[in-house]
Amino acid sequence: MPETFQHTTRVEFRDTDAAGIVHFSVYFTYMEEAEHSLIKHLGLAVMMEDEQGAFSWPRVAARCDYSAPLRFGEEVVIATTIGKLGERSITYHHEFLLNGKSVGSGEITTVCCGMGEDGSIRSRPIPDFVREKLQPYADQP
Amino acid sequence: MPETFQHTTRVEFRDTDAAGIVHFSVYFTYMEEAEHSLIKHLGLAVMMEDEQGAFSWPRVAARCDYSAPLRFGEEVVIATTIGKLGERSITYHHEFLLNGKSVGSGEITTVCCGMGEDGSIRSRPIPDFVREKLQPYADQP
Amino acid sequence: MPETFQHTTRVEFRDTDAAGIVHFSVYFTYMEEAEHSLIKHLGLAVMMEDEQGAFSWPRVAARCDYSAPLRFGEEVVIATTIGKLGERSITYHHEFLLNGKSVGSGEITTVCCGMGEDGSIRSRPIPDFVREKLQPYADQP
Amino acid sequence: MPETFQHTTRVEFRDTDAAGIVHFSVYFTYMEEAEHSLIKHLGLAVMMEDEQGAFSWPRVAARCDYSAPLRFGEEVVIATTIGKLGERSITYHHEFLLNGKSVGSGEITTVCCGMGEDGSIRSRPIPDFVREKLQPYADQP
Repeated sequence: MPETFQHTTRVEFRDTDAAGIVHFSVYFTYMEEAEHSLIKHLGLAVMMEDEQGAFSWPRVAARCDYSAPLRFGEEVVIATTIGKLGERSITYHHEFLLNGKSVGSGEITTVCCGMGEDGSIRSRPIPDFVREKLQPYADQP
Repeated sequence: MPETFQHTTRVEFRDTDAAGIVHFSVYFTYMEEAEHSLIKHLGLAVMMEDEQGAFSWPRVAARCDYSAPLRFGEEVVIATTIGKLGERSITYHHEFLLNGKSVGSGEITTVCCGMGEDGSIRSRPIPDFVREKLQPYADQP
Repeated sequence: MPETFQHTTRVEFRDTDAAGIVHFSVYFTYMEEAEHSLIKHLGLAVMMEDEQGAFSWPRVAARCDYSAPLRFGEEVVIATTIGKLGERSITYHHEFLLNGKSVGSGEITTVCCGMGEDGSIRSRPIPDFVREKLQPYADQP
Repeated sequence: MPETFQHTTRVEFRDTDAAGIVHFSVYFTYMEEAEHSLIKHLGLAVMMEDEQGAFSWPRVAARCDYSAPLRFGEEVVIATTIGKLGERSITYHHEFLLNGKSVGSGEITTVCCGMGEDGSIRSRPIPDFVREKLQPYADQP
């Protein structure tokens, strides 16, 4: 069983829309918050460097399913695991929990990319020291 | 062949992030913009009424794939068709075009829901006069 | 000397723009976060009721001065006092602190308004039980 | 009398909040939209270069007063003039018009800054070819 990382966020007023609930696009920023919180928790950073240069994690796919609304002031727990830890990509799985019950879930796929000083962006294998830290949260070995 | 609806938007500075490109969550608001623009183009409204009462279109699923970045000031064309026009739900398909080339695509599934005065939200069949207007944009009959 | 309320927030990636810093409009949501956090800390709520009905706090003015940028991942302390506790309005003063040094400051003026069930919004005196809780944070008596 | 530049925008659903109206922070992005639209209209760009290097326009102050709400779907005209065209700074004045009536107004002050390749940001005089284009929109000579 993979480990689960839990990140808690509070619904701010700006997150809501005129339907009185959290706008569906905001769940994607919540998922990114949770991912960045996990990365920080592991002693890593969103933008890092190794001997091959700077690398970061552009997004190539994102999805979310909504089963119940979230409202202003509510505390949301985002439970994160890694659905797929690939050679060059990571698919994070996020479950949104309100009072312990799921109100939605989503996935974001990021690709490890070298960020050239000239602005170039090229995919590269995930460095071993990063993979080792993420491994416990991954479904498969 | 279904008809395609084209909506054009310009990347505002607030849409970008520190990576210098449009934040991935913003594509979801672009897709909603395109959907609302189509609804308006058809003479419909986002919140409407028929003899059964007020109805609107809560979202139950959303996804997006990103193949190339968008940057501040660029004009993006969003080409919209309807992938599935169900009994109670609609899945809009959106293609993001920059200078005529696709830079990503996404889908949003909305469910026709009666909006009770007491705040209740309950799914209901899509009214015929709405279905008739959307039909030309749908893949299947 | 009035009391100061301190609210801490972390700069999320979505808060930044292509200049690599927090977008100037985001400071206004940070200030609102701090205000709502103070209201909650005092045992009050953003939307409340007394014998005269529901009331809330629409904004009539907001301003911010920026002296140094904020960047992704930084922890910002917002130090809040009340510059003016009027008969019907409150002007909150917020100082943005990064590592103990000010990087900007702003003010938001809200008016106590009765929110009618028919959608009407009308200013009304601030209820005494609210005023008493806010008084310690106010500059003048 | 200075010239007025008019920019029209439509209130998108994401611009609203649970109070059913446009969130007060969004007016600042509308003002920035109008400013960038004027800059483009004049044949200038937000990030430009002259013989002294790249320059752009960081914000040092922003304020807005709100007199009536804006709602989803409404068309807002932003009427822009330049309140102060200084040696190194510009204060844009923006009036928000709904059906020809003012619903609020605001100001943003930007400073002309050289953007060094090393990330340094330093104020500098506004280049003459920029000043000449902005002059007709300024209150004073």
